Amino acid sequence: MTDLIELLREGLPAEAVLTDPDVTGAYAHDMASFCEAGAPAVVVLPRTVEQVRHVCRTATALRVPVVPQGARTGLSGAANASDGCIVLSLVKMDRILEINPVDRIAVVEPGVINADLSRAVLEKGLYYPPDPSSWEQCTIGGNIGTASGGLCCVKYGVTAEYVLGLDVVLADGRLLRTGRRTAKGVAGYDLTRLFVGSEGSLGIVVGAVLALKPAPPEQLVLAAEFPSTTSACDAICRIMERGHTPALLELMDRTSVRAVNTMGNMGLPESTEALLMAAFDTPDPAADLAAVAELCTAAGATEVVPAEDAAESDMLLQARRMTLPALEAVKGVTMIDDVCVPRSRLAEMIDGTAAIAAKYGLTVGVVAHAGDGNTHPTVCFDASDPDESRRARESFDEIMALGLELGGTITGEHGVGVLKREWLARELGPVGVELQRGIKQVFDPLGLLNPGKLF
Amino acid sequence: MTDLIELLREGLPAEAVLTDPDVTGAYAHDMASFCEAGAPAVVVLPRTVEQVRHVCRTATALRVPVVPQGARTGLSGAANASDGCIVLSLVKMDRILEINPVDRIAVVEPGVINADLSRAVLEKGLYYPPDPSSWEQCTIGGNIGTASGGLCCVKYGVTAEYVLGLDVVLADGRLLRTGRRTAKGVAGYDLTRLFVGSEGSLGIVVGAVLALKPAPPEQLVLAAEFPSTTSACDAICRIMERGHTPALLELMDRTSVRAVNTMGNMGLPESTEALLMAAFDTPDPAADLAAVAELCTAAGATEVVPAEDAAESDMLLQARRMTLPALEAVKGVTMIDDVCVPRSRLAEMIDGTAAIAAKYGLTVGVVAHAGDGNTHPTVCFDASDPDESRRARESFDEIMALGLELGGTITGEHGVGVLKREWLARELGPVGVELQRGIKQVFDPLGLLNPGKLF
Repeated sequence: MTDLIELLREGLPAEAVLTDPDVTGAYAHDMASFCEAGAPAVVVLPRTVEQVRHVCRTATALRVPVVPQGARTGLSGAANASDGCIVLSLVKMDRILEINPVDRIAVVEPGVINADLSRAVLEKGLYYPPDPSSWEQCTIGGNIGTASGGLCCVKYGVTAEYVLGLDVVLADGRLLRTGRRTAKGVAGYDLTRLFVGSEGSLGIVVGAVLALKPAPPEQLVLAAEFPSTTSACDAICRIMERGHTPALLELMDRTSVRAVNTMGNMGLPESTEALLMAAFDTPDPAADLAAVAELCTAAGATEVVPAEDAAESDMLLQARRMTLPALEAVKGVTMIDDVCVPRSRLAEMIDGTAAIAAKYGLTVGVVAHAGDGNTHPTVCFDASDPDESRRARESFDEIMALGLELGGTITGEHGVGVLKREWLARELGPVGVELQRGIKQVFDPLGLLNPGKLF
Repeated sequence: MTDLIELLREGLPAEAVLTDPDVTGAYAHDMASFCEAGAPAVVVLPRTVEQVRHVCRTATALRVPVVPQGARTGLSGAANASDGCIVLSLVKMDRILEINPVDRIAVVEPGVINADLSRAVLEKGLYYPPDPSSWEQCTIGGNIGTASGGLCCVKYGVTAEYVLGLDVVLADGRLLRTGRRTAKGVAGYDLTRLFVGSEGSLGIVVGAVLALKPAPPEQLVLAAEFPSTTSACDAICRIMERGHTPALLELMDRTSVRAVNTMGNMGLPESTEALLMAAFDTPDPAADLAAVAELCTAAGATEVVPAEDAAESDMLLQARRMTLPALEAVKGVTMIDDVCVPRSRLAEMIDGTAAIAAKYGLTVGVVAHAGDGNTHPTVCFDASDPDESRRARESFDEIMALGLELGGTITGEHGVGVLKREWLARELGPVGVELQRGIKQVFDPLGLLNPGKLF
């Protein structure tokens, strides 16, 4: 242990090596606070690629596990420490190195905060779409590690689609450059994409070339109330079937709506069973919203209210973004599922979730990136009640089983982490698991990077 | 040998096993006819996944290499046979199994022809964007193997972005399912993306779930004449910098224009040094074309002609699509580079190519997916002249070196194949090569799949 700290200090400034347990303890876990987490031996906060290489070389020399971290806003425990590990926090590597409007790329360090990048590129007329709910806190490195999504994915896709190239420090300290800064490129196997969503288990991302889009026109939002989730899902299917391209298409069930009203006094309509929000950032969003309003009414909406301006639109989105904290406030703790199903199966997924909640006598609020079929059934429970905690975990698992049954995945955008580790093999099957373990072995033969996550 | 054929016949109908050397010889190579190619021992044409598994099991049992093939329209020799191999042609597995407008996916077998799929989904109001020039012949499996691009990539991206999930037969005959049929999903490493562009070296793709887009409005094309490639490239940078999203943005140099006129009597303007074509499939393409026309004029265009209707637009695109055969007709054979550079470096790339052509005393026509920075410098040569053939190869290589120098890649969309094999390590670097070889080893430990390609 003394060896470890001494060796780390040889290549890091004093303030970049934290050993006080009161301080390092704060780095033990991400937002999935109830997931198991160990006590780190040390937390390091490098500012340069060379310092990260030093950390990895030291870890390899002493066979100490390394757990990379961004802002720890993840929801699956993927950034949770293991006992005696080096927590490698990349938040101090937070420079935006380049924004190029002709090539439509940004070159960034991993600790850049998502919203900071979004604002910086917007000043140049550009747009970095991925927008996880934690965008004011979360880092680009963390977004890459978990392959984060957000509200805009239904039109713009997830983080993976915006990562063109990476600089990666391997477990043994070697430097790897993957991908490119060009719009296209197919030379060799796509290692870039392999790192996206790998939860720090293959290497440490120390730089990224990101693709940007032109900034779209300001979006306009519509809210529609439905007498049942089935009719709301029917509207979603009609909207997508007709070829509309909403910039977001979100669903909140009654439980979520009530929780938000309780927390934020937002004045959302409590009598509704399902609230649908659609937005367009097209040249004529009002016309698109009118067409969608018609489809909502045809599907049974009892009330359809297009926002009149950007301020009203923002209010609606603010209410939507408040859902997870609002549901957390119901019982103190939540376990958030992230099941994504084909959107044609969305109604079955939501109805099935309600049945599971009833079976276990629990409150499960559902908020969904409905246009993507990506649901977040949020199990509310009192962590101090062992029986309720057990029922919470069982219902959480049963919701994943239902997702797989409906042709879906256990995680649309939050990642596997600790929370869904047992479920990964069920989704991938034995051949997939064997190959994925083989890949882990190629990149990290000593198994030092984020052990206990993924493979 | 007798053993091989007998064993293959145990799991394949008689007509699916071809051994006549006159017949099998026709399967020896793709469109890069001058690249080295061996003589296959046998060609098999399976119709089912089970038959493909039988072929792979047999190959593994007897340690015989397997070279998978689609329509052999590739331009890099990636489908070329090796001596004594089994050519595994997937063209008979050509069923479209599902088109789902709500989920916006298609499920297909690998032998489906790109244009057949495009037409089938269009009937349901959907759009499968990837459109390689060979789209009337090439197969989806081949597109996946080479990660093909096309004209529309500048707006819609390459094949990789449309592959959600795959069914793959591994070298030993085991079946692997990767990915998903959902819009999002991040469970485990992205094996799907690893197969895209792997040139059949990791497994045999026997099924694919493809993402579809809503069919866009009909596109309208504009042609602009420039007095120099520099001014044309300047226009391209301005168009992209201003946030336009053309559905294609193509450049033909003077050599290409003249070759097309010679072959097709197309009446393109021969006095121009560079012809730029831009298209929009937006709600108001005429307005977008007018804005782009203004930028072209500001950059020095001498003539800007928007097509008045779809028929005129089609004529222009037909001329563009004729470029490669027209350049081939100049000297009989061509070697087609596929260098992609950041679009801000496009002018340097094209000027540098002209200098290389002059240095070697060769005709090199340049056609480019200019919006992507993806150039196709096409070296025209007489293959019966050894000195000219040598100069052709040297200039072809020097063009790749220039691309790498400018921060580009040796291949934007055609793949590595045999043609650029020597160059792959230069682009990837030693660490990248070692890791990629490790991946190959995980998937194909006996090295039976498409040996001599990639790794």
